[in-house]
Amino acid sequence: MKDEMTMFRLMGLPDFQTGDDLAQKIIDTFSAQNKTLQSGDILVVAHKVVSKSEGACAYLDDITPSADAIELAKSVNKDPRKVEVILSQSNRIVRAMKRPDQEEGVLIAEHKNGYICANAAVDESNADHPGQLILLPDDPDKSARALCQRLETHFGCNLGVVISDTFGRPWRLGQTNVAIGLANVPGVMHMLGEADAFGRPLSVTAPAFADELAAASGLLMAKSAKSPVIIFRGLSWPKTDSSSRDLIRAHNEDLFR
Amino acid sequence: MKDEMTMFRLMGLPDFQTGDDLAQKIIDTFSAQNKTLQSGDILVVAHKVVSKSEGACAYLDDITPSADAIELAKSVNKDPRKVEVILSQSNRIVRAMKRPDQEEGVLIAEHKNGYICANAAVDESNADHPGQLILLPDDPDKSARALCQRLETHFGCNLGVVISDTFGRPWRLGQTNVAIGLANVPGVMHMLGEADAFGRPLSVTAPAFADELAAASGLLMAKSAKSPVIIFRGLSWPKTDSSSRDLIRAHNEDLFR
Repeated sequence: MKDEMTMFRLMGLPDFQTGDDLAQKIIDTFSAQNKTLQSGDILVVAHKVVSKSEGACAYLDDITPSADAIELAKSVNKDPRKVEVILSQSNRIVRAMKRPDQEEGVLIAEHKNGYICANAAVDESNADHPGQLILLPDDPDKSARALCQRLETHFGCNLGVVISDTFGRPWRLGQTNVAIGLANVPGVMHMLGEADAFGRPLSVTAPAFADELAAASGLLMAKSAKSPVIIFRGLSWPKTDSSSRDLIRAHNEDLFR
Repeated sequence: MKDEMTMFRLMGLPDFQTGDDLAQKIIDTFSAQNKTLQSGDILVVAHKVVSKSEGACAYLDDITPSADAIELAKSVNKDPRKVEVILSQSNRIVRAMKRPDQEEGVLIAEHKNGYICANAAVDESNADHPGQLILLPDDPDKSARALCQRLETHFGCNLGVVISDTFGRPWRLGQTNVAIGLANVPGVMHMLGEADAFGRPLSVTAPAFADELAAASGLLMAKSAKSPVIIFRGLSWPKTDSSSRDLIRAHNEDLFR
């Protein structure tokens, strides 16, 4: 492990529309600024630019809500069409709640990819126009790997990519970014068998490396600025055949689902 | 917001014992390496060195478990004396579970300071000898402020301090560091009234700034190395009269307590 690392953000990326070549636009932006990537660099990329490029969006005007969606929408005072989209993205709803002081409540959902998050990650912020909802990419690991491969080929070095989204937490206020798609980067660093600084086995220590990266990216990735790509330089990390599913707790280990 | 920041760890700190002057040892270690701190730097400090310096420890040999502790210990196959210490640190137990494949189960507890975490943060790893349990500092905000003030006076600049612990998460595997004590550093950045990159109000965006710092520190703070102090340089942040309680979700907003 090294003693120092740097983190910087890539400014100057354009807005993204369905069909845009995200990798090429990132490459072009690096080139325009005479910047490059180095072996071992990890990019954390906000999922919104991936989702927009891939067209992972829904439009309220196109949606006819089901009876279930209409019923559930009443309980949390949401647009039934938005609830329909949330249901279409979910394995199931874990909790539904609207506090008296809230105008619109929240649906804690198990997303079809396994993540548990508010409203199945269906989001209106940073949409291009009212009525557009941004969804998660269909297969964020695949998106991360495709982007990583393109960047590795162009820059001629080994890289890692983490696609992130911003999640709330059950017991703590405020949001942090978490990893929802991985290329090469380990989700969790398993330290079984290693010892602590006093030689005692570290039996349950397993840092969530990809989530540490994602959370750190939030220090430079303000939602109000167009900085969806953050680069980490100087970390040592083992290249792995990883998946964002490595970060998801199994049902039988989960006391809060 | 700046476009780049660096993170480095302070190596060469000694082990800590009850009564040690943590601030002085940090200052001495900086001096010995001809390093200094700059205005705006934030230090994330692993709570264990704070707890050890302050004597926030318990010793199994000194503990007589209560009937409640003995009963609860059976259900999760823990040493009843350890359960007694956990209960003494807790407002209440949120969940108790031992899976068939686990030798020792877990008690998810609401710590008396409000954090919800495994075993009320009572920890055996990095203890100096078997039978020693490391607790959280009595008042981690007070500890953070005292440390911050000493460092600010010595280095003649404005600093921030976050005291961290390593917590698991309910739905995600692996652990991340979270903030349990704050000096000057905002817990949550409230962005109410700001707009997203497309001018839409960011009504619920509130990055958990101190937790982002804590999680990021895990990238350089390996448990198996003696690197309990991580320095962040280059961030712009507003100095605030903050408390780690700013990060704790109120009971009435909590769907999972």
